[in-house]
Amino acid sequence: MSQEVQPDFAKSDGLVPVVVQQVGTGEVLMLAYMNREAYDETLATGRAVYYSRSRGGLWRKGESSGNIQQVRRVRIDCDRDTLLLEVDQVGGAACHEGYPSCFFREITPAGATIISQRVFDPSEVYKQTE
Amino acid sequence: MSQEVQPDFAKSDGLVPVVVQQVGTGEVLMLAYMNREAYDETLATGRAVYYSRSRGGLWRKGESSGNIQQVRRVRIDCDRDTLLLEVDQVGGAACHEGYPSCFFREITPAGATIISQRVFDPSEVYKQTE
Repeated sequence: MSQEVQPDFAKSDGLVPVVVQQVGTGEVLMLAYMNREAYDETLATGRAVYYSRSRGGLWRKGESSGNIQQVRRVRIDCDRDTLLLEVDQVGGAACHEGYPSCFFREITPAGATIISQRVFDPSEVYKQTE
Repeated sequence: MSQEVQPDFAKSDGLVPVVVQQVGTGEVLMLAYMNREAYDETLATGRAVYYSRSRGGLWRKGESSGNIQQVRRVRIDCDRDTLLLEVDQVGGAACHEGYPSCFFREITPAGATIISQRVFDPSEVYKQTE
């Protein structure tokens, strides 16, 4: 049983938040955003494409670092205003800080504690663009 | 090593998106939002409290259905503009439609397909408030 279901891009200025999860481990890697164009390109190519709010344009994840995300499954929530992408993260790190996940810190009563190990040194990977 | 790290509530009109994940299975249950007040109450009580954008007020998850979320860990992302809550979902269902996860549909070339089983019948659980 299937039906045509589209993300509700109109709800938040043309963007929907996208939760990105590693297939296999289930680790939540990051939260990003898509507009209609990013969504269509992601479905067409099988590679994650987001909309960068800071740059104001399409963000083809991994274009500079090589750490692309191969999309295995796209899920949509009950309200059609959020997507969940199950991906295979090439290079093992989604975060520009070099960690597997952007959520590498835990909030504790004593403050934020780093609970992850770096996969790469960001100053090495991004030095071309500095 | 720890340091004081606060969510950046100023970035998006006082709200931060919150990814909610079931401990143990790693299933992504839902995406919600918190303002400062919801965040403080969540940390203080250990139960997930969100900000309902549709109702314009605090949303103590499970208050009417009984399906509360016991918070096991709070994580914050590199940009401090998104939270990840690891929770134990009481009742086994986070979605008001009766599914374990709000992301119970997969987008396929043929349309949206339901990939989950209902845990409860929403017409039974919510009938008091209708």
